Parts: sequence; C-alpha cells; structure tokens
Amino acid sequence: MTPKTLALLGSTGSVGEQSRAVAAEFPERYRVVALAAGRNVEKLAAQVRRFRPALVSVAEPAGAEELRRRLGADADLEIEVGPAGLEAVATHPADLVVAGLVGAVGLAPTLAAIRAGRDVALANKEVLVMAGALVLREVKAHGVTLLPVDSEHSAIFQCLAGQRLEDVARLILTASGGPFRTWDSARIARATLKEALDHPNWDMGPKITIDSATLMNKGLEVIEARWLFDMPPERVDVVVHPQSIIHSLVELRDSSILAQLGLPDMRVPIAVALAYPERLPLDLPRMDLAAIGQLDFEEPDRKRFPCLDLAYAALAADEAAPAVLNAANEVAVAAFLEGRVSFPGIAAANAATLDAHVARGGHARLSDLDDVDRADRWARRFAAEWLGGAGEGGA
Amino acid sequence: MTPKTLALLGSTGSVGEQSRAVAAEFPERYRVVALAAGRNVEKLAAQVRRFRPALVSVAEPAGAEELRRRLGADADLEIEVGPAGLEAVATHPADLVVAGLVGAVGLAPTLAAIRAGRDVALANKEVLVMAGALVLREVKAHGVTLLPVDSEHSAIFQCLAGQRLEDVARLILTASGGPFRTWDSARIARATLKEALDHPNWDMGPKITIDSATLMNKGLEVIEARWLFDMPPERVDVVVHPQSIIHSLVELRDSSILAQLGLPDMRVPIAVALAYPERLPLDLPRMDLAAIGQLDFEEPDRKRFPCLDLAYAALAADEAAPAVLNAANEVAVAAFLEGRVSFPGIAAANAATLDAHVARGGHARLSDLDDVDRADRWARRFAAEWLGGAGEGGA
Repeated sequence: MTPKTLALLGSTGSVGEQSRAVAAEFPERYRVVALAAGRNVEKLAAQVRRFRPALVSVAEPAGAEELRRRLGADADLEIEVGPAGLEAVATHPADLVVAGLVGAVGLAPTLAAIRAGRDVALANKEVLVMAGALVLREVKAHGVTLLPVDSEHSAIFQCLAGQRLEDVARLILTASGGPFRTWDSARIARATLKEALDHPNWDMGPKITIDSATLMNKGLEVIEARWLFDMPPERVDVVVHPQSIIHSLVELRDSSILAQLGLPDMRVPIAVALAYPERLPLDLPRMDLAAIGQLDFEEPDRKRFPCLDLAYAALAADEAAPAVLNAANEVAVAAFLEGRVSFPGIAAANAATLDAHVARGGHARLSDLDDVDRADRWARRFAAEWLGGAGEGGA
Repeated sequence: MTPKTLALLGSTGSVGEQSRAVAAEFPERYRVVALAAGRNVEKLAAQVRRFRPALVSVAEPAGAEELRRRLGADADLEIEVGPAGLEAVATHPADLVVAGLVGAVGLAPTLAAIRAGRDVALANKEVLVMAGALVLREVKAHGVTLLPVDSEHSAIFQCLAGQRLEDVARLILTASGGPFRTWDSARIARATLKEALDHPNWDMGPKITIDSATLMNKGLEVIEARWLFDMPPERVDVVVHPQSIIHSLVELRDSSILAQLGLPDMRVPIAVALAYPERLPLDLPRMDLAAIGQLDFEEPDRKRFPCLDLAYAALAADEAAPAVLNAANEVAVAAFLEGRVSFPGIAAANAATLDAHVARGGHARLSDLDDVDRADRWARRFAAEWLGGAGEGGA
C-alpha cells in the first residue's frame, strides 16, 4: 500500500494532534509530509522528530529559530514562517490537507490548498461559515473533495456515501439543545455565564459552548452544511436530540432516512476523513444502543433561540452575510464572557448587525478573501459599537 | 433513459402488486416484460393489459385457458404453466427479477434466475432461510446482486452503500419485540392465539405475526442476513426497538454506526431495490422525528424468546439446519394457530427438531435443492410427530 501523504495545518491544536495520533497508529497508511503550527514549538519539535516531514511552518521567525535549536543537527527540513509558511504547507505536495486551524487565519491557506487541487479534511469552521460561497466555487472549479471533520457534517458525509446528490431531499442536523433547552424565556434572560457554560454532552471551549447554548453553533453548522454539500438552505433542517447519539441524518427522495450514530469522539470523524472511502480499524469502545436505552427528539424552539433563524436569514441575504453574522457573534459572545451583555443580548447584537448589513446592501458576491475580510471587519466594528452603545439597552 | 426491464415472480401477491404499482408510477424507468402468478387469473389479466409483457406464467393449465379467454384477441403473449412457467419467467431476459413468491415454491425459480445471471430483488424469505449457503455460492459464481425487499435487510443494504464489506464490524437488526416483549415467562406460557396475533407495528399475515411474537422471525432474518451479506453469524446482532422506526443498523470498524429509518411502508424497500443505485421520488409522507419524539432500545431476552438463539444454533450446525428449523417452525406455528400446541410449544418443537437433526449428523453441505427439500421434508415429519406425541407433553 502506498501511504497517503498528509499536510497538517494547525498540527499542535486539538484536531491536528488527533489527526497526528490517528496517522501514527497506521504508519503503513499515512505519511505526514508537512506541518504548520503556531507558537507551540516544543510540541511541534516532537512531531517533527516523530514524522520527519519535509516542511514545517511556525507563526514567527523567533519560533523558527527555536525550532532549529531544539532539533539541532537533525533539522534536515525546510522551515517557513507566518502566512507564507501556512500557504507553503497548504500547497506542499500531499494527498490530503488537514485544515485544523481555528478562526479566520485558516481561510487563506485552505483556499490555497483547494486552488492547488488538494483534497481537504476541513475542521476549520470559519472557512465555510465566512467564505462558503467563494470556497464552494473554488471546490467546483478545481474538482477537489472537502471531507468534513466535525461530528454533524461527518455524519451527513457518511450517510451520503453511495448516494447521488440529486436523490437527497433534506439534510437533518441534530442539536443537543444546549443547557437551556428546557428553560423558559424569562429564565433564559437571566442565565448566568456559569449556567451557559454547562454543556450537557461535549467538553468544549467557552466560545463554542456559548454558541451551543444560543443554538448559534447549530446555525453556523447549517451555513457550513449549505456550502459543504451544495444544498439549498430550505433543505437543511435541524432537530433537537438531547443525547447527541445520532450525529445527523439525510432524507432521500424516496422518504428513506439514513443516520450516523456513535459515541462522542472526534477521532471517528478524523479517521473517516483520513481514510475515505475506506474505514480504519479504530480501537474504540463499541456503542451499545440497548445500554443507551432511549433517544429523544424535538423541534428546536426558534423563539427562545433566535440565533438559529439568523443563520437562515444570513444565507437568504447575500454571500457576505454569514461572515457578518459570524463576526457579530464572536464579538457578542466575547462580551457575554466578559459580563458586558446579557445572554439574550448575544442574539440581539447578532440580529442588529445582520439587519444593518442587509440595510447597507451591495454585498451580492464574495469575489475573494478581501471581500470576506471587509465584511468581517465591518461587522466587528458595528457589533462592538452596538454592544457599547444604545443597542444593548433594548436587548 | 433506457427503461429497466423487470420480471415479476408472484406478480399478484403483495410484493408483486406493490412492485407493479411502483413500476407503473415510473413508466419511463421500468418495463415489465414477464409475469408469474398463481391462481389469481383476474388480477393477472389486468396486469397483462396494463404492461403487455412478452411472457406470463400461471399455476395450472386451466388458469392459462382462462387467461386466454379473458384477454381475447389481445393475447399476443406466451403463456407458460407450473414450475416450468416460473422458471421461464425467472430466466426471461430482464434487468431485474423480483422474487415475490411466498414459500419454498420460490426456491427453484430464484435459483434459476441467479444461474441465468439475473440480479434479483428478493422478497421470498425462504430462498435464503432454507438454501442460503447454496444461494450464496451461486450468487458469487454468477456475479449477480441480491437486492433485499424487506425493511430490515433493505435498511442494512442501504447502510452498506458506499462501504467496503471488509470495513463492516457488525450488522444490527432491529426487532419490535412483539406483543409479549414486556410479559414474564409465566404469562407468555399462557398466551392465547388472539394475544399472539396482536402485533404492535405491522399488519401482517398470521404466520409471520406469530413468528414476530416468538422472535423466530428475527432469528430467520439473522439467517437471511448471514447469507445475504456474507457475514459470519457472530457479527449479526439483534436489538429490540419497539417503535420500529430504525429498520436496522450497520457498525463499521471505526465504531461509526449507520442506520436507516423510515415509516413502515413496503414501497420504500421495493423502490430501493428497483431503483438501485438511484432513488425514486416517491410521493410518501415524510418522517418527522420530533413528532415521533422517542426511540427505545433494549437487549432481546433470549430466555423468554428462545427461538432467536435457535437461529444462531442452526447457522452453527450445518448448511441444512436452517431449512430444518424453518420447516419445524412452519409446522409448529400451524399447530399453534389450530390450538394444538401452547405458545412455548413452538420453540420447544423447533428446538427438538433441530436437536434431532444435529444428532443425525451428515448434512454438512447443500449441493442442490434436492438436499434442501430432503431436510425440509424430514423436519416437517419430525416436528409433526413430536407435536402429536410425547414431545408436547414436555413443552
């Protein structure tokens, strides 16, 4: 078997580390040929010793010097720095690029990988949330495959295997419903930071945990699904499923529904992406449905959790609106985490920013990342002003 | 689009009628070229007028005469009779043979279709239950595809689309658990015919409804799955799922589980088989998981429902043992329906017959249908004697 060559963007982050671990478990199947990290040079040096890639990249020149020092005489590799380094890793000859960066910093290298004809295992949510329309056009133009690396989109990807896209009636994302699923609006309005951070099923960072409580996370996943699977937004649905055992579903036009289930473990979607169209023999616990006993489903409450509908509104508005919504939400969640806005204020800030964007008009198309960046910066400024000013008074 | 040509075995039965209905809904996709019915000449005549097949077959010469009379001058078709007629329809040039006969009568024509290189949409359970080892060898030898037409195996077939068989860890059949799922053994021992016929989810004939109450039906489906998907019996599992919404599941070796869900409607597995690998736009109600609300799962109780383990025992014994178990069960269920044996007596008769078969030895291999027939006849005689004699005293 010829090993599949991998380039890892964000190699010292969570997805990068787990991708590295899966690759290391199957050395006959994978060869890691390029690594891009940020400032965690110690971990990167260990990865270099383990995989001996031809190319690595770090955020800053000082990091590059430290890496050379740590590797010593072993340093038979090219070391690049900064955005150019990310792009070098993204376009280095490889069978698959794992886009494991977090945030907007991953946009340019991921787009570069696509334009270089690389298949991409995509964990970097912002790529499709901020620039979905642009990315989808480039994916089509270059005939590459995007392999999702998060549980919901991987579930849909797995269900779509062997199906024709024209036979798909509907994608159904499952949502845990977050910690406020059973709370009434009055109680949600008084929700504290501690309560919002108490996610029922997954242990994640604070930003995404708050997004899970507002359902903005599911809204952003609707946006991702729309672009990832080239599916009109009205055919992307959400059902609340508190146990998070069914990770998502696909309805076909003969009314049959396919679903993917599993225990919450990111190694599964990572392994699915790395091995596609094959499956890796992972040594993981097997799910026992009888032991789980019960799976529940309910409609998401779009009144108590208005962020979900904002995602559909953004998709209906224009190609830049999802980037606007995402930027506003980052600013609003940061304000909530700092105690500067109430929990319902997050949705209010998002809605106000999206409304103002639509009122401005003139953002029909994302021609390149500059357009994305412009929308992002405008929205951050607007949301920050709204949160600091009269806006929150009305929230 | 070149229409797919279909030959229907059992055209006036339930699966035949529904296959005909699906084909009629998509005339640009399907052409019915051969029909085999039994004695329902009136319905067959209507089908002939609608589809104008080149060949039909009926059970008896009198039926053939009546059909000619009914069709009159329109009768521009070949009419065959009896077993030779079934085989003529099964081997008539067609892209797909729908094996919709009920019982052992379908064995020979289905095997003839496979040997003639035809793909087969298989609804005729006995083909794999009685002759699975033989059929699997012929399927492999002739490189044909078996497309299951029942909800559980179709679910597995749908989940396997796009997967490699070597990546499959386990097939998981769902079972409703039948009307006695929550009853204790003492109450089951006193179960009346009326209670056993009260199936919670599907409206079926009396034989299969009793099989559902004993879980023999699920055992027979384990046997079918073993041969249909060439899966070792220890990798075919059963989970009880009272709502029958998840029709079955497939576990892959990376621990991911795929499932197929849907409302109980036989048109879906029929359409899946007819359209494979595509999907037909069926005008059926869409399943609403939130409205369904809850799905439950539990282990099957192998003590209260011993028929399930008998199926595994038969698969472990020899190639003829499943046919023996099936025949014993037919005799025992008939006796229960006639009030000649208690409900637990069904499992006792099955177990006694299977034990006696194993004790006799010498049935390592099914070389042809004669071997199947011999095992079937021996088991019927043994079970009848056991039920009429001392055996039932001990049940």
